[in-house]
Amino acid sequence: MANNLGAIDGQVLDDWAGVVGADHVLTDTDTLARYGRSTLPQAHAPVGVVRPASTDEVAAVVRIAGRHGVPLYPISRGKNWGYGDACPSGPGQVVLDLARMDRIVEVDERLAYAVVEPGVTQGQLAAYLRETGARLWLDCTGAGPEASLIGNVVERGFGHTPYGNRIHTLSGLQVVLGDGQVIETGFGAHPNTRTQSLYPYGVGPWLDGIFTQSNYGVVTRLGLWLMPEPEAFTLVVGILDSHEDVAPVVDALRRLRLDGTVRSVVHIGNDLRLISSGRPFPRDRAGAPPLSPDMRKALQREVGFGAWAFSGGLYGRRDQVAAARRAVKRELGGPGRTLVFLDDRTLALGHRVAGLLGFTGWGKRTAEKLRRSRPLYDLHRGVPSGHFLAGAYWRHRDGLPPDFATNAEPARDQCGLLWIAPVIPATGEAALELDRLVAPIFAAHGFDLLVTLSTVTERALDAVLTIAYDKSDPDETARARACAEAVITAVLAAGFVPYRVGIPFMPQVMGNAPTLAPALTAIKAALDPHGILAPGRYDPPM
Amino acid sequence: MANNLGAIDGQVLDDWAGVVGADHVLTDTDTLARYGRSTLPQAHAPVGVVRPASTDEVAAVVRIAGRHGVPLYPISRGKNWGYGDACPSGPGQVVLDLARMDRIVEVDERLAYAVVEPGVTQGQLAAYLRETGARLWLDCTGAGPEASLIGNVVERGFGHTPYGNRIHTLSGLQVVLGDGQVIETGFGAHPNTRTQSLYPYGVGPWLDGIFTQSNYGVVTRLGLWLMPEPEAFTLVVGILDSHEDVAPVVDALRRLRLDGTVRSVVHIGNDLRLISSGRPFPRDRAGAPPLSPDMRKALQREVGFGAWAFSGGLYGRRDQVAAARRAVKRELGGPGRTLVFLDDRTLALGHRVAGLLGFTGWGKRTAEKLRRSRPLYDLHRGVPSGHFLAGAYWRHRDGLPPDFATNAEPARDQCGLLWIAPVIPATGEAALELDRLVAPIFAAHGFDLLVTLSTVTERALDAVLTIAYDKSDPDETARARACAEAVITAVLAAGFVPYRVGIPFMPQVMGNAPTLAPALTAIKAALDPHGILAPGRYDPPM
Repeated sequence: MANNLGAIDGQVLDDWAGVVGADHVLTDTDTLARYGRSTLPQAHAPVGVVRPASTDEVAAVVRIAGRHGVPLYPISRGKNWGYGDACPSGPGQVVLDLARMDRIVEVDERLAYAVVEPGVTQGQLAAYLRETGARLWLDCTGAGPEASLIGNVVERGFGHTPYGNRIHTLSGLQVVLGDGQVIETGFGAHPNTRTQSLYPYGVGPWLDGIFTQSNYGVVTRLGLWLMPEPEAFTLVVGILDSHEDVAPVVDALRRLRLDGTVRSVVHIGNDLRLISSGRPFPRDRAGAPPLSPDMRKALQREVGFGAWAFSGGLYGRRDQVAAARRAVKRELGGPGRTLVFLDDRTLALGHRVAGLLGFTGWGKRTAEKLRRSRPLYDLHRGVPSGHFLAGAYWRHRDGLPPDFATNAEPARDQCGLLWIAPVIPATGEAALELDRLVAPIFAAHGFDLLVTLSTVTERALDAVLTIAYDKSDPDETARARACAEAVITAVLAAGFVPYRVGIPFMPQVMGNAPTLAPALTAIKAALDPHGILAPGRYDPPM
Repeated sequence: MANNLGAIDGQVLDDWAGVVGADHVLTDTDTLARYGRSTLPQAHAPVGVVRPASTDEVAAVVRIAGRHGVPLYPISRGKNWGYGDACPSGPGQVVLDLARMDRIVEVDERLAYAVVEPGVTQGQLAAYLRETGARLWLDCTGAGPEASLIGNVVERGFGHTPYGNRIHTLSGLQVVLGDGQVIETGFGAHPNTRTQSLYPYGVGPWLDGIFTQSNYGVVTRLGLWLMPEPEAFTLVVGILDSHEDVAPVVDALRRLRLDGTVRSVVHIGNDLRLISSGRPFPRDRAGAPPLSPDMRKALQREVGFGAWAFSGGLYGRRDQVAAARRAVKRELGGPGRTLVFLDDRTLALGHRVAGLLGFTGWGKRTAEKLRRSRPLYDLHRGVPSGHFLAGAYWRHRDGLPPDFATNAEPARDQCGLLWIAPVIPATGEAALELDRLVAPIFAAHGFDLLVTLSTVTERALDAVLTIAYDKSDPDETARARACAEAVITAVLAAGFVPYRVGIPFMPQVMGNAPTLAPALTAIKAALDPHGILAPGRYDPPM
């Protein structure tokens, strides 16, 4: 049985130290507090931290934990912002920190994949590809350069490119099960295999999916497909003047995705999501959230955004991208919309012209716009940035740290951040319905609604609703939690189930599907007989 | 425990009759023999057949089987040619025939999906879409109009279009587990869900993969993504004069797949695979297989094929397809290769010209070529045909039945057919290596090597090696089995593990990955505690 005492006996620590070395078994107060930092209104600090350096060490640590009945909470890099950060799923758990396992095991340029360990960050792989001259791009999320690739992928996170629906970019997992067994999924279990990283499904039951959003095993390595550097790349940015106009845009994007014109994940953000990416809540001018309609309009004008904006990449051969661009212009252009296409040529030209005309207001504004669009442009080309974590600081009393693009750490900086991520049909009417459903709940709890809608599949949008709150304010923190619960209740009732859940809300969401509980519980017992891996994480409530 | 006696007690039959009606519990000799027909050298006939009409009936039948310890072998339509047909995976099993569950539950044109039951055939869905005027195309396999969609999809079969890697076209399964529980995977388990067919993964562990190529449950319904009818479609057919030229073609196709130019599954077939699609082995001219090099050359000339040919579809907007066509021409054209592009316009034009010049030899040959290419063209547009089963009749003493395009039934017609399907890296050198590895084994056992290579993922090829043998000849039948075992042994040793396996070879292939056995066995026990679903099917050997 799991140890729920909040303390931990000495024998298990000694046993672990025998495996990973005493330096990598940590129980000091500072360390525990550091791992216990969270963007959520409440979180559990661990009672210890173990830092193995290899799969064999992970297996040994897991077997020891099983013998002693001490629950382990595996993290890759612990950057699960807004969903639980590095914090365990319950009290009395020991964090199994895989950060030391940071080897890029293999990169194959011709067949376009990498094999990585959990500690490998997206910044690390991007740098590696650049330094080795491999003409491969990775798909990045907005979670910053320090975020683990495996950590995000096994949460079924999504990025921005044709490889953005990341669950379909995995091929071959290495997993340590709850009893310490090490398995390879797919063809990796077969000796001499040459297709483990090329064909994910293997022969017999395809297991990979059950090791995503689960606590059945510890993923210690995986094959990740990368995109060959395309001949041409164009970033499309669109700005919509009116709120309602998001509906026909969503419908057009669905058609463009379905017919293969746009193969990347397109992100649509509302005004506040975009405004928050450059500046915090205007405390000096606005009092408490939510912002008044007038103030929103004023901020929209100041930053040059409309009610919504979207961005997506076009990738391929030169004439393919040109054809896609024409189709996008035809389907997404129109009155009340601004469409901008950025590529290497226009960027270089813009910089040159803006430089030449730098003494004019126009030149200065253009240079500034180009500077601002650079991180977004680069993100779509496999260059991660902390830039996109700015929204986490929306309600922070100190605002954005000056170095946030390189050094954003929302949990360290005590940002209050809750992400709620309902999936909706990829239709304009569903997008407006979701807004009508949740906007009043945000307002009633005193929060601005920051929202993105992402075309993760051709048929569905992953919405990400941000509750950014002032963590130094206990009242606002309590309201944030209540708001999240109310929003989750509302989206579940509407049939817009979240694709991913923060730790405090797992019982609510997993409890919404009671018919699955016996099967999930049976598989858990089969693969983790001692129940020591991340108890409660995506478990159906008892 | 499973009943292995080859007979079945009366009480279980009565219990099932109480659920499905006495007419749908069959044990007569003719029926058992019909279900026991197989293209394989050996197969098990069932000891009974139960034909439920609904998910509730399936669940009740499964619970009764569990109580009595009688193993059930679920089939959808039983057209698993070359891998096991409708036959159970062992002796003493009762076939659970789901053919009566043939409802097309839903078709959504805007969001481009269908929800179907296991009895729904590809011909049935194609006809339904045509009749209702839904502008949606399905992905077809070559298994003929009577093949079940679910049957193929849960075997991880593949087709010919951008939706050809079928495992990625599922969203939401309904499954009856071994204890009779009914679950819905993905968001289907959540009340009021509106995204079950739009976003496959749900929240928490993604289960779908473990119900493919497994015996953990009976899939009784699934959501299947369909392709919106594209603005433009072009079929590309290429013919290669020389054997070695397949290598650069495979490399070029990999690049075209990786950069998104070609989004469909491209099939590459060798001369014999293509020759066998139009005529049987030339017994009158050739004696016993394998055909001599001279005879192969002669047959190549007669049918107008080279050493290899490939076909694939280009789908999309008009200028996207035009751009893709240019890229294909550039990358795949060249000396010793013939490239043909067919679309509605060229076909109409060809028919008109051939009709006008029908009195000439050229006109007649052209008309014949167009007639021959029609099934292939239509297959890529979602119109299934029995035409592609001709290869199964290669060694049949009676040759091809005259109505095989509409009435091919290899098992009924006593065809001898074994498919071995190793996965190889999508590189030219791997394609040649596979050929060098298996061609001598085929020849040593007295068989022609019929082979296709299909670009199922961007990085791997699914090879399908056909052993077509004369089932009326006991010696040839024994050699076929020995040949299959030798080929499987060789491809496993080379690291080219099959993506799918015929029933007699499951122990050999699943036994090649012993490290996975404990996990697979544990999941099986968790979901099918009585062990009554298709024992042995994709099970690791004990």
